[in-house]
Amino acid sequence: MPRLNIVVASTRPGRIGHVIGAWFAGVAAAHGGFEVHVVDLAELNLPFHDEPGQPVDGGPYAHEHTRRWSEATDAADAFVFVMPEYNRGYSAPLKNALDYLYREWHHKPAGFVSYGMSSAGMRAVEQLKPVLGALRMVPLAESVNVALRQVVDADGTLVPNPAMGAAAQGMLDELRLMAELMTAARVAA
Amino acid sequence: MPRLNIVVASTRPGRIGHVIGAWFAGVAAAHGGFEVHVVDLAELNLPFHDEPGQPVDGGPYAHEHTRRWSEATDAADAFVFVMPEYNRGYSAPLKNALDYLYREWHHKPAGFVSYGMSSAGMRAVEQLKPVLGALRMVPLAESVNVALRQVVDADGTLVPNPAMGAAAQGMLDELRLMAELMTAARVAA
Repeated sequence: MPRLNIVVASTRPGRIGHVIGAWFAGVAAAHGGFEVHVVDLAELNLPFHDEPGQPVDGGPYAHEHTRRWSEATDAADAFVFVMPEYNRGYSAPLKNALDYLYREWHHKPAGFVSYGMSSAGMRAVEQLKPVLGALRMVPLAESVNVALRQVVDADGTLVPNPAMGAAAQGMLDELRLMAELMTAARVAA
Repeated sequence: MPRLNIVVASTRPGRIGHVIGAWFAGVAAAHGGFEVHVVDLAELNLPFHDEPGQPVDGGPYAHEHTRRWSEATDAADAFVFVMPEYNRGYSAPLKNALDYLYREWHHKPAGFVSYGMSSAGMRAVEQLKPVLGALRMVPLAESVNVALRQVVDADGTLVPNPAMGAAAQGMLDELRLMAELMTAARVAA
C-alpha cells in the first residue's frame, strides 16, 4: 500500500492543527487505501533552513534534523498538508519544511486539509500550489476546507460535519489513484 | 524624516541577502529621504511564532523577542523587504516575521528588493502582496528585481548595475511620498 504522510503544518501554541490532523488521520485509516503516518512539524521541530548546501543539490546533508526529515519524506508516496491560513498565505513552518528538501518531493501527489476562521484556508492552498509545482509535486484539485467558525463549538472542540467527511473521502480516492500512477512514473524514470 | 526599516529576509548560511541589503541601504542613505535602519532577520533570530496570544490581539506579548520586534516595527514609517524567492514563493523567515505582529504594520507602505537566479524574485513579491494587504500595508508597484545571474560575478561578488540603481531611486521617491501620506493618515486616525 502507498505510504501517506499527513503533515501537520502549524506549530504555534494554541493551534488546532493537530486536532484536525488527528481527525483526518482517522478518516484516512478507515479509507483503507494507504499506510498512514502523521508527521507533526511541531514535534519534528526543524530550525529555519540551516544547511550549508542548497536543497537543489540533494545533499549530503550536514545536519541530523535534515537527514531525519529527508528520510521521512523520501519514504512517502503521497502527502496531505493539514494547513492553516495566516494573513492570506501559508504558514512559515510549512514553507520552511518544504524548502528544506527537493528531490524527496518529486513526482508525488499532495492533497490539502486547510482551515481558517471563515476563508477555510483556501487562499493559503492556492498560494501553495505554485510552490509544490516548483518541487515537481502534483497538487490535487480536491481538498478539504474547514471553516472553523462552523465546526468548532463554544468550548473550542472540533465537531466535524458530514461535508468534511465527504470531501475527505473524495480527496483520498483521487490521492490513491495519483499515488499509484506517480509511483509507477518514479519506478519507470 | 520618516524612518525606513530595510528588512533582510533571508537567514540561511551562504545567503547573499545581507550583501544586497547593504547595497540598498547605501542607496537609501544617499537618497536622503529617510532615516535608514537595516533589520537583519538573521540577527533578530526570531523563533517560529510562539506567543500564546494571536497577533490580531495586539499583545501584551509574553516574550522579549516579540517585544523587541514589535518596537522596531512600530517605530518605522516605511519598509523595504530585501527578499529571496524560494520555490516560487516568499521565504519562511519573512512570513514568520510578518505573522508575528499585526497593528504594528498597519497603514505603512512597503517596497521590495527581490532576488532570484533568473526570476529576479518577482513571483515571491507577487505572492507577498496579498499578505501585506491582510496586514493593512500598502505594497508599492515599484520594486527592484535582481537577477543574480546578471549581477554576481564568478567570485560570488555582487556587481550592481545601473538599472538596479535607477529602479531603487524611483522606488524610494514613491516610498517617501507614500510614507508621508500614510503617516498623516495614521495621525488622523
